[in-house]
Amino acid sequence: MQRFINNPDEVVEDTVKGFVKAHADIVRLGENPRVIVAKGAPVAGKVGVVTGGGSGHEPAFIGYTGRNMLDAVAVGELFSSPTAKSFHDAIREADGGKGVVCLYGNYAGDNMNVKMAVKLAAKAGIEVATVVANDDVCSAPPEEREKRRGVAGEIFMWKIGGAKAAAGASLEEVRAAAQKAIDNCRSIGVGLGPCTLPAVGHPNFRIEPGTMEVGIGHHGEPGLRVEALKTAEEVAVDMCKIVLDDHDLPQGTEVAVLVSGLGATPLNELYILNDTIEREITARGLKIYRTFVGNYFTSLEMVGATLTVMALDDELKALLDVEVRCTAVL
Amino acid sequence: MQRFINNPDEVVEDTVKGFVKAHADIVRLGENPRVIVAKGAPVAGKVGVVTGGGSGHEPAFIGYTGRNMLDAVAVGELFSSPTAKSFHDAIREADGGKGVVCLYGNYAGDNMNVKMAVKLAAKAGIEVATVVANDDVCSAPPEEREKRRGVAGEIFMWKIGGAKAAAGASLEEVRAAAQKAIDNCRSIGVGLGPCTLPAVGHPNFRIEPGTMEVGIGHHGEPGLRVEALKTAEEVAVDMCKIVLDDHDLPQGTEVAVLVSGLGATPLNELYILNDTIEREITARGLKIYRTFVGNYFTSLEMVGATLTVMALDDELKALLDVEVRCTAVL
Repeated sequence: MQRFINNPDEVVEDTVKGFVKAHADIVRLGENPRVIVAKGAPVAGKVGVVTGGGSGHEPAFIGYTGRNMLDAVAVGELFSSPTAKSFHDAIREADGGKGVVCLYGNYAGDNMNVKMAVKLAAKAGIEVATVVANDDVCSAPPEEREKRRGVAGEIFMWKIGGAKAAAGASLEEVRAAAQKAIDNCRSIGVGLGPCTLPAVGHPNFRIEPGTMEVGIGHHGEPGLRVEALKTAEEVAVDMCKIVLDDHDLPQGTEVAVLVSGLGATPLNELYILNDTIEREITARGLKIYRTFVGNYFTSLEMVGATLTVMALDDELKALLDVEVRCTAVL
Repeated sequence: MQRFINNPDEVVEDTVKGFVKAHADIVRLGENPRVIVAKGAPVAGKVGVVTGGGSGHEPAFIGYTGRNMLDAVAVGELFSSPTAKSFHDAIREADGGKGVVCLYGNYAGDNMNVKMAVKLAAKAGIEVATVVANDDVCSAPPEEREKRRGVAGEIFMWKIGGAKAAAGASLEEVRAAAQKAIDNCRSIGVGLGPCTLPAVGHPNFRIEPGTMEVGIGHHGEPGLRVEALKTAEEVAVDMCKIVLDDHDLPQGTEVAVLVSGLGATPLNELYILNDTIEREITARGLKIYRTFVGNYFTSLEMVGATLTVMALDDELKALLDVEVRCTAVL
């Protein structure tokens, strides 16, 4: 493994330490060292906004902690859910007396641990509303949307929820805005190369050279199909077709587009994909309101990219444009 | 090659097209399609700030175009200098009637092409001052500092120069501030894996598994030594020692720190490095004023990281803190 690590079992601990040292102007460590808290949080009278998830997806999740975004983030081991205690501690750190919304991804471990954390919080007198992200179109058919995984659409969900909470909205209003955001998102991933958990030492899935996996999940979950690697243009056409066929948006709908690298794909290739993505989305009669291109939600050193399209209305546009201060670019 | 590309000879063209489509709120294409211009540039009465360099280092150089940063950027082929014409056209696009500063890296092709561009600009009545970055400590000994290459310290040079120009400074004042910034920078790179130019199809240098190259350049230029891969802590200790021994700063000096990935190194590993980097810099009696961690200056899918340390004074601190609007995080 050609990696910068110390003890493979302490990757997350070392990451969090270096993260908090780098960004003391934006975040602080929680009382629980597996919780990252926005500097200045909790804000009295503001709905707290929380997420959490496995590590190895940086800048997700911790990099989205900050002003007008997430108040607190529960940190899991590499590719595995934070504990119920960490979710609960994140909720406590975010609680400004007006309730807390927990916006997280649809994975078995996260579902279980968030549920337990919500019960613990209720006992402690904190009202918690939840929104579960399920934007990954290839992880289940449309009629079973509740089974789909959450991927990079979560970033839009956090940004919308964070902005709504910062505007002084109620818990129910924040929940509803975040729910609308993720309901309006569809995402797809394409993998060209696997990644390795340092403590394992070899990839936990394979992508043969010359092939790609269309619809792959953020942890290498099997996709729709494995096929010969195509040109960037062909890949982008396929990604748009899968996402937009599932989305079925009326002509003239305004959308936000997010193209994220999975870790080891050069940034310039994401722009190459975006050149075609813009063409395809526009050709469908949709209007691109804003585009984000970068490493927003990665999977260690996986080679590949994801596309997320969020349909917008006036409320979502206004919330999307609220400036944030976190360590990732938004 | 597991890459998202179309015609390998059109990687730069496709990248630029996708970039401009994504960020029309921040940049526009120049008249010359190998020039990226900040939206709103040139600003009448403001010193123009320009750079340029080979592609494949994204977000450098184009991602630093924007308000309070670079007014225009000349875009070269992958890993090769922009033409003299492109540098000249970037200078013309940035010219607001108060002169233009060209802040670029010390590479043979860039030196030659900038010199020609400056002559062309003089004929066109535009006064151009230049600053050449040479922050890469392993590329020549201290007594031959003028031979050293420019690497990630260029980002600080651009940020300082951009902020100074935005504050209404004269051409000479902007040049002096940018020169001070790069004079105060020292950088080192460590490579764990090579990168491949798509048109070549195989790596143009080798890094054997289990080894690392300390002092490697941004295009795989040979470093100080090849040795067995160490832990992140040991690597960070070595990086700090090489940079700080060369820097020789008085106790109590405030510094800015930039830890950049080279393309395929997961972000969390940069934080792991930063955990030790912070410890080592602090142990030398230096005070860290700000830390930047991310993929700031990459080399396609090279595995590895760079460390840049810039010594600060009151002027540099104030300029470093000027908010910018570009596509990279700063």
